[in-house]
Amino acid sequence: MLDDKNKTFTPLQELGEFGLIEHLEALLEIRRQETILGIGDDAAIINHNGFETVVTTDILIEGVHFDFFYTPLLHLGYKAIVVNVSDLIAMGAEPTHALVGLATSARSSVEALEDIYRGIQMACAQYGIDLIGGDTTTSRSGMMLSITALGKVPKGQAIKRCTAKPKDLIVVTGDLGGAYCGLLVLEREKEVFKANPYVQPDLAPYDYVVKRLLKPQARQDVLQQLQSLNIKPTAMIDISDGLSSELLHIATRSGLGAKIYENKLPIDQQTFKVCEEMQLNATTVALNGGEDYELLFTIPLSDFEKIKNHPDFTIIGHMTDENDPVVLVTNLNEEIPITAQGWNAFRSKGFGGTNSNQENEPKET
Amino acid sequence: MLDDKNKTFTPLQELGEFGLIEHLEALLEIRRQETILGIGDDAAIINHNGFETVVTTDILIEGVHFDFFYTPLLHLGYKAIVVNVSDLIAMGAEPTHALVGLATSARSSVEALEDIYRGIQMACAQYGIDLIGGDTTTSRSGMMLSITALGKVPKGQAIKRCTAKPKDLIVVTGDLGGAYCGLLVLEREKEVFKANPYVQPDLAPYDYVVKRLLKPQARQDVLQQLQSLNIKPTAMIDISDGLSSELLHIATRSGLGAKIYENKLPIDQQTFKVCEEMQLNATTVALNGGEDYELLFTIPLSDFEKIKNHPDFTIIGHMTDENDPVVLVTNLNEEIPITAQGWNAFRSKGFGGTNSNQENEPKET
Repeated sequence: MLDDKNKTFTPLQELGEFGLIEHLEALLEIRRQETILGIGDDAAIINHNGFETVVTTDILIEGVHFDFFYTPLLHLGYKAIVVNVSDLIAMGAEPTHALVGLATSARSSVEALEDIYRGIQMACAQYGIDLIGGDTTTSRSGMMLSITALGKVPKGQAIKRCTAKPKDLIVVTGDLGGAYCGLLVLEREKEVFKANPYVQPDLAPYDYVVKRLLKPQARQDVLQQLQSLNIKPTAMIDISDGLSSELLHIATRSGLGAKIYENKLPIDQQTFKVCEEMQLNATTVALNGGEDYELLFTIPLSDFEKIKNHPDFTIIGHMTDENDPVVLVTNLNEEIPITAQGWNAFRSKGFGGTNSNQENEPKET
Repeated sequence: MLDDKNKTFTPLQELGEFGLIEHLEALLEIRRQETILGIGDDAAIINHNGFETVVTTDILIEGVHFDFFYTPLLHLGYKAIVVNVSDLIAMGAEPTHALVGLATSARSSVEALEDIYRGIQMACAQYGIDLIGGDTTTSRSGMMLSITALGKVPKGQAIKRCTAKPKDLIVVTGDLGGAYCGLLVLEREKEVFKANPYVQPDLAPYDYVVKRLLKPQARQDVLQQLQSLNIKPTAMIDISDGLSSELLHIATRSGLGAKIYENKLPIDQQTFKVCEEMQLNATTVALNGGEDYELLFTIPLSDFEKIKNHPDFTIIGHMTDENDPVVLVTNLNEEIPITAQGWNAFRSKGFGGTNSNQENEPKET
């Protein structure tokens, strides 16, 4: 959690905005054939002939979405790209380009920004994206990252939220609640550190959940898997705010109800362990913890055979009819209405993009 | 400068993020045939077949780029779109779509955000743009707007900065330095108001320069005029940071020198008047004041006859050879090297997106 104190740092003022842009431009690489013009003009140019352009944007604010106490700059840059790539993948699109807006205190160092850009570059390389533009400016306090990502999809092939059908199976990838547990562990260690800076945290037993929070993956591999299984989801969304919230989005936008089963929710052993330590209900954490960046999608019932034994896909329930509610069937066979308790940007005072204040704390169901 | 104190306001917390998105969505209108999917999914979808997509992004920070003391919310929203549209136009592109990221204090009111979105909508309607997505979140202090704008241009027709040729004429549209003078006037009135809130400012004599700052126009009409004159600029840029800075961009990126003439700089009478009152050199203000959002472009010498009597285009000089400097020829026939004194986001502590602190104050040449 501590930086190397012997490094020397270059104040941003020394370079100025244009100097900084040139400096960071040197870190960039153009990979994509359709990139006609990248950084260095009023705007960038992309050739997307024959495809539809898909575009998304996200803001990350220090103290709201991340905490520098436990978020390394490299991870911050990396994650900022990944969360946008995840939105594109949730549309069934191939991520192609990104623009980065960065507001930072004039007292920041050039080296700090380089670390963020290195993280951005790592993610761009991993997902085959070109960084083609941005804006860099001062903030009055704290850091703010604004990312816009573009992708492409063959004409008419995008997967929306609003097109689920009654009886469709509801499928989730990976496991849920891990990122939120990682946040809880890091928040706990922060309190310990504040009380006694000489105690070194042992995060090894929490490696999986901490990684889920700090280095999430966008599930591009899932699109390939679905294609090879010859499955075309009827609706899809990524889980950034929590399963409850995302399921409600699909149900509401599709004008349907939904039923999911508590005993089907995929939860990792380490998530269970943290929930036990923190005396939280793992189901509630899986439903409402955000930032897992797994995919939630619906498929026709007729695709059941293709997917039933897939190690990474879990069928958690099915869509119901127009006037039905969105419910969780508990292990005691009770039906509980699902409400969005996930991250609410206007209520939370917490960190990490998940609900960490009293009001939004996952509650025992 | 005062809001209606009798209005009742709805706190953002009451709506929450999703409620707010739905509420603001109702204010939106989809105008463009190529908009396949707008707000309400992980990402938006645009059909740009047969065209190249042009994309740009900009961040506006309270206390750095705008001051609520004299920036009405409606104007803030409007200007946020215009400055991005201006970047697209400077590429020769037709603006088509925008995404808006907004970070604001949870204590803001729904009505305040509506005013910003109304301003955004006004600009979108004026320039024929669809607002298709965004992100809304809390800030820890102050407001931050991040806009991404997309446009389209026929294949290979974009006008870059890096393609000016030796001997090309340098042309500027409209007049320069007005927005900076508007800022100076508003800053002066702010100080007067702080000293004595009962003094009502009379801004009527400054209507033009104040409007230049608060309600700038992106020069889309210029593209049409150039087309009807059968002129294709060799390079183009919009004047957001100041003429000096933009001319240096064209010269540097094109690998050339440039020569412009003090007695050719187009300056409005009201700009001259404010400069006189403030004891500033109008040439310096025209060179270094930012935010005029006029266009600076180069055209082949052979197009001189087509443009020489145009009321809105001023030929201010010409490009020179590879190893030549970028200079201003003064009224005393002296050659002075041009340096970028415009807005530097990492040095300024001022407001308005122009250089308003001591260090960057336009200096007497």
